[in-house]
Amino acid sequence: MLAPESCRDLAHLGHVEMFTPKPEASLAFFVDVMGMTESGRDGDSVYLRGWDDYEFHTLKLTASSTSGVGHVAFRTASRQALDRRVAELTAMGAGIGWTDGDLGHGPAFRARGPDGHAFELYYDTRWYEAPPDLKPALKNQAQRFPARGVNARRIDHLNLLVLDVTATRHFLERGLGMRLTEQIMLDDGTEAGAWLTATNKTYDIAFTKDHTGTAGRFHHVTYAVDSREDVLRAADVFLEHGVFIETGPHKHAVQQTFFLYVYEPGGNRVEIANAGARLMLAPDWKPIVWTQTERMKGQAWGLQTVKSFHTHGTPPVEDHD
Amino acid sequence: MLAPESCRDLAHLGHVEMFTPKPEASLAFFVDVMGMTESGRDGDSVYLRGWDDYEFHTLKLTASSTSGVGHVAFRTASRQALDRRVAELTAMGAGIGWTDGDLGHGPAFRARGPDGHAFELYYDTRWYEAPPDLKPALKNQAQRFPARGVNARRIDHLNLLVLDVTATRHFLERGLGMRLTEQIMLDDGTEAGAWLTATNKTYDIAFTKDHTGTAGRFHHVTYAVDSREDVLRAADVFLEHGVFIETGPHKHAVQQTFFLYVYEPGGNRVEIANAGARLMLAPDWKPIVWTQTERMKGQAWGLQTVKSFHTHGTPPVEDHD
Amino acid sequence: MLAPESCRDLAHLGHVEMFTPKPEASLAFFVDVMGMTESGRDGDSVYLRGWDDYEFHTLKLTASSTSGVGHVAFRTASRQALDRRVAELTAMGAGIGWTDGDLGHGPAFRARGPDGHAFELYYDTRWYEAPPDLKPALKNQAQRFPARGVNARRIDHLNLLVLDVTATRHFLERGLGMRLTEQIMLDDGTEAGAWLTATNKTYDIAFTKDHTGTAGRFHHVTYAVDSREDVLRAADVFLEHGVFIETGPHKHAVQQTFFLYVYEPGGNRVEIANAGARLMLAPDWKPIVWTQTERMKGQAWGLQTVKSFHTHGTPPVEDHD
Amino acid sequence: MLAPESCRDLAHLGHVEMFTPKPEASLAFFVDVMGMTESGRDGDSVYLRGWDDYEFHTLKLTASSTSGVGHVAFRTASRQALDRRVAELTAMGAGIGWTDGDLGHGPAFRARGPDGHAFELYYDTRWYEAPPDLKPALKNQAQRFPARGVNARRIDHLNLLVLDVTATRHFLERGLGMRLTEQIMLDDGTEAGAWLTATNKTYDIAFTKDHTGTAGRFHHVTYAVDSREDVLRAADVFLEHGVFIETGPHKHAVQQTFFLYVYEPGGNRVEIANAGARLMLAPDWKPIVWTQTERMKGQAWGLQTVKSFHTHGTPPVEDHD
Repeated sequence: MLAPESCRDLAHLGHVEMFTPKPEASLAFFVDVMGMTESGRDGDSVYLRGWDDYEFHTLKLTASSTSGVGHVAFRTASRQALDRRVAELTAMGAGIGWTDGDLGHGPAFRARGPDGHAFELYYDTRWYEAPPDLKPALKNQAQRFPARGVNARRIDHLNLLVLDVTATRHFLERGLGMRLTEQIMLDDGTEAGAWLTATNKTYDIAFTKDHTGTAGRFHHVTYAVDSREDVLRAADVFLEHGVFIETGPHKHAVQQTFFLYVYEPGGNRVEIANAGARLMLAPDWKPIVWTQTERMKGQAWGLQTVKSFHTHGTPPVEDHD
Repeated sequence: MLAPESCRDLAHLGHVEMFTPKPEASLAFFVDVMGMTESGRDGDSVYLRGWDDYEFHTLKLTASSTSGVGHVAFRTASRQALDRRVAELTAMGAGIGWTDGDLGHGPAFRARGPDGHAFELYYDTRWYEAPPDLKPALKNQAQRFPARGVNARRIDHLNLLVLDVTATRHFLERGLGMRLTEQIMLDDGTEAGAWLTATNKTYDIAFTKDHTGTAGRFHHVTYAVDSREDVLRAADVFLEHGVFIETGPHKHAVQQTFFLYVYEPGGNRVEIANAGARLMLAPDWKPIVWTQTERMKGQAWGLQTVKSFHTHGTPPVEDHD
Repeated sequence: MLAPESCRDLAHLGHVEMFTPKPEASLAFFVDVMGMTESGRDGDSVYLRGWDDYEFHTLKLTASSTSGVGHVAFRTASRQALDRRVAELTAMGAGIGWTDGDLGHGPAFRARGPDGHAFELYYDTRWYEAPPDLKPALKNQAQRFPARGVNARRIDHLNLLVLDVTATRHFLERGLGMRLTEQIMLDDGTEAGAWLTATNKTYDIAFTKDHTGTAGRFHHVTYAVDSREDVLRAADVFLEHGVFIETGPHKHAVQQTFFLYVYEPGGNRVEIANAGARLMLAPDWKPIVWTQTERMKGQAWGLQTVKSFHTHGTPPVEDHD
Repeated sequence: MLAPESCRDLAHLGHVEMFTPKPEASLAFFVDVMGMTESGRDGDSVYLRGWDDYEFHTLKLTASSTSGVGHVAFRTASRQALDRRVAELTAMGAGIGWTDGDLGHGPAFRARGPDGHAFELYYDTRWYEAPPDLKPALKNQAQRFPARGVNARRIDHLNLLVLDVTATRHFLERGLGMRLTEQIMLDDGTEAGAWLTATNKTYDIAFTKDHTGTAGRFHHVTYAVDSREDVLRAADVFLEHGVFIETGPHKHAVQQTFFLYVYEPGGNRVEIANAGARLMLAPDWKPIVWTQTERMKGQAWGLQTVKSFHTHGTPPVEDHD
C-alpha cells in the first residue's frame, strides 16, 4: 500500500506579531540596528521587513503593556490549500474564525494552538513595492540592500515555549501540515523540543518546553543573513549599540544553525542566523532524534547552553528573568 | 474562479550522468579537487557525491568516447507523484519507458526533452550510508566534512544548451511540473534562456540557446558551497591545480548567483556557486523577464559575459571550441 | 662584510590629498557609500578617515578645478627619522621645504618626486578622538564600527601613474627608505611597475607607467576591509548606489590583493581591498620580478586587465578617458 | 629633548619548539588536521610549517617525556641587530650562549627569560624551497595552498604562562626590544597579562600569570588563517576529527583576536586566529590598560573565560588539569 502523500499546504512563515512595552525603542532597534525597513503603520502597530522579504511585512511590532507574541502567520500555497487547512483546523476544534487581515494581507483564519498561541493562515498577500529611494539595482530583488546595521535579510523561523511539546507538534503536523525534522527526547520519554518545516528550509518553527510552567510564551524570532561572517558582524554591531548578547555566535548541534541571540529593548529575544546553507530536500526525511545525553554535550563546538535559554521567554515570568 | 494549484510532484534534482573521454583524470578532478566522495562503481561508471548530499550519488561519471550529459534525473515527492508525471509525459508522447535504476536508486521512468536530452524520474532511492571513516560528528549530517579541495557540498542545479528554449521550457513545465522563475526575452520576441525550479531554491535547471545550432548539448552542472568566500577559495584551489577557469568568480545579474566556471579534464563545464542564500518562498512568484538591453549590461557588477559561455558546450562542436 | 641595515624611517602611509571638481558629491560618496567619517573642515578641504585609522584623517578631500592628487604624506617612525629623511631628500635636491602642517598633523617636509608628485613627511600627528556618539565599545579601537555602506577600515596604499617607473622607485628607495617587494620588467628591459613597502604590509605605494605620456597623475587610493567577503559586499553596495565599477572583484596575481576598483564622483579611482591577510615579515625579502609574458596571463584567476586601467588616471587626459 | 628611537632589532617570531609525549599523534594532528607541511626531520624532531611561512619551519616538534615548550626563536632584522641584542642580553646577565642552529637556520644566541623560558635569536635563515608537487601557481607565494584540514597559513604568535608578568615584560622590552601594546592591571596593582610586538602585528608574544604557581610553562602557539570564517571552518574540522575544543570561536576583547583554542594530542594548546586584519602602524602606540573590572565582563561578545584558560598549561601540573 502506498504511504499517503505529505502535505504541502503551507508556503512559508509569513510574519510574527511581537508585543513590546517600549515601542519606540523597539522600533529604533529593528530599523537602526537590525537594518530593517518600516513599510507602514496602523494603530499601535508598525510593519517591518527585511530587505529580501517579498511581502509587505514579516514583523508586526505592536505596542502593548508587556512583551510576547501576538500571533504567528503562515501563508498557504494556494486558496485551495487555505480551505483545506481551515477545514482541518475546524475539525480539530482549534479554529477561532476569520479576520479581515491587516495592512499586509487579506482574510486570515485564526486558530489556537494547544499552549494558547494564536496562529493565522492566509493566502492573499500584499507584495512589497519599494519607493523610489529603496528601489534595488537588480530587478529580481525586493528592495535595495540597506548597508545599515545587521542588514537582516529575511524572516527565517520562530521559536515558542510550550508546556507540552508533543501536543504542539501534533497540532502543527495535523492542523498545518508541517513536517518534523529534528526533536529532543528525554530519558523519561518526554519530548523536550521539536523542529518542524513547511518548506525546503530545515525548520520554520521550533518549540521547547517552558521550564517555568507558564503557557503561551514566546522564545524568539529569527532573521536570516547570508553567511556566518554576517552573523559575526552582527555581533560586532550589537556590541557597538549596547544590545545585550545572551549567547553566541556559535553553532547549534541541532539543525547546525550558526546562531546569535540578543534581547531587543522590549525584552523579546531575537536571533540572527545563517539558515540558508543547509536545505531539506528529501521528501521522506527521517527525523533526527537527539537524546538527553547527546544534548548535555552542549552545542556543536562544545559551548554549554546558557541557563536563561530555558527560562527567559516573553512575557517575563517573575523569579525566572 | 480559482487558479489551479501549482504542481509539487518533483522533490529535487537527483543526479546528472556526465560522459567523459578521460575517465581517470575526471575522477581525480572530482575527488581530489572538488573534494567529492566516490560511493560506488559499476561498469564504466563511478558514482560520486558531495558531503551534504543525502543520496548515494548526485554525479554518475561514465567513461565514453566524448563528453556531454548522459541523463538528468529528478526525484519525485512520492510514488503517487511519480505516477502522475509518468502519465503526463506519456500523454505528451515524450515517454521512453522504465529502467531498473542503477546503484543509486530504484525504477526510473525515462523521457526525452524537445532537444533530445534524456530525463529520468524516480522515487525509490538509496540513502547514503557513510563508512566508519567518513561518519560525521553530528548525526544530522550525511557524511563527514572532507576538508579537501573545494569541499563541494551538494548538487545544486544543471544547465543545458538547447535549440528551442521555449519548447524545452514547456516540456519541463507541463511534463515535470516545474515553475519558471526568470527568463531572457530578446527584442525579436524569442526566448534566449529560462530558469526553472521544483523547490524553494530559485532554480534547479536552466537552459540557454545553443549558438552553434547543435542539439542535445550540456552546458554545466553546479555544486553548491556555503558562502561566496567558499567560491573564492575554490578559485584558489583550481588555480593551484592548473584547472582552467573560464570566468568568475563574479555575481550573475540573473538569479544573483555568485558563480565560478571551470572545465573538468573531460571538457565538461562545472560551476561552483553559493546558491543557498536566496530562496524562492512565494508560491505565486511572477517570473522576472530580462530584456536584451538589460543583458547587454553584463553581469551584476559589470563583467561582460565571455564569448565561450555561449558556444562551449559538451560534446564539443568543431570550429566553436 | 656586513650588508647595510635596511632603513625603517617611515612608519606608515599617513594620508592622501585628493582633488575633486565635485566636492559635495565626492564627500557624500566617501561618507555615505564608503562609510567614512568626517573629522574636520578647513577652507576648501574636508578631512576624512576610516573607522580603524588612528590619526585624525587619512584622506584630505580638496575642492579643485579638476581631479588628481594634491600630496601624499608618510608619517616617520620618530623625529630623528624625519630629520634623517629631510637630510637625504635635501641632499638629493628633491626637497621643497617645510609646511606648518594642517588640521591633522604638525610640521611636514615636502619633496617632489621625479614625476612631479608632492610627498610630505611628518612625525607630530593628531590622534583621533571620537566624539561621544562615535565612541567604540572596545577601548582598543579608534572609533565605533559604522555599519554603514562599505565600512572602509583604514587607508592601505596608493598608486601613482609615472613616466619613469625606475626613477620614481629610486626616489622612494633612497629618499624615503622604502623597500621594493614586487616589480614588472618588460622584455625590452624597461620597468613597467613597482610595489614598495615601509611596513610589514607587502606594499604601501605602487606605480605603473602612464601610457598617455602625462606626468604627475594619480591612479588610485585604497582602503582596506577585513576580508574578501567584505570586498564583495562593497561591490553590492556600489551597485546599489550606481557607482561605476571599473573592474573586479578579482584577485591580482601581483601581491595577491583581492581588488575592486570604482570611480568616485570627482573621477578619481578608489580601490577596496583586503590587504591585511598577507604580511611581509622577512627583513631581506627578495623582490618578485614579473615578466611581460607572465603579466599577459591576466589576473590570478584569469581575468584580463581592463584597458582603462592603463589609461584612466586623474586628472583626465583628453582622448584617453 | 628627543625621546629615544624605538628598537626595531627583531624582524618577527621565527618558530617555537614544542615538546610532545605523543610524537606520532601530534605529527598527524599538525599535518592532517592543521594542514601543515613537514619540511624535514632531525633526531627526535620534525620540522613543520604553514603554507605561507617563508622559512624552512615555524614549528619544531620534538618527542619528549612530557609536553611544553623547548625554545622560542625570533629572527632579527639584520646581523648587526643580532649583535646588538646579544650585547644587551649579555649585559643583562640573561645570555646562555651560541648554538650552531638546526635544519632551519644558522647560529643562534640563546637567553633565558625570568621564568626560565629559553629564547633564541638568529639572523641567518633557510628559505623554504617547495618541492615540485608543492610549487605554488603564483610565484610570490612560498608553497602551494594545501586545501587540507585547517589550512594554517603562518605562525602568528605564542603565549606563555609566567610567575611574574612584569619581570617577563621587562626582559622582552629591554633584552629583545619588543613593544608593549596591551596589558591587564589588577586592582592590587599587579600585572596579570601583557601583549608585546616586534612588528606591525598587534602582538607577537603574550603571557599571563600562571595560577598554579609553576614556572616556565607554555600556554599556546597560534597559527593565522585569513578570515573569521576560516576560524569557524577550523572548528568544523576539529569537531570532525574529535579534537578537544577548549573555547571559542569567539572574539577577545583584548586585541580583538577572533580565537579558537584546541589541545593537540600531546596536550599542548594550539590557537587558530585571524590576526591579520588589525595592524599596529603607530610608532608611538600608547599601551591599552585593561582593569580587573573590565576583564570580568568576559570576552568581546560576553563569553566568560573558561577556568582552564588560567590553569591548563604544558607541561601539566597535578591537580590543575
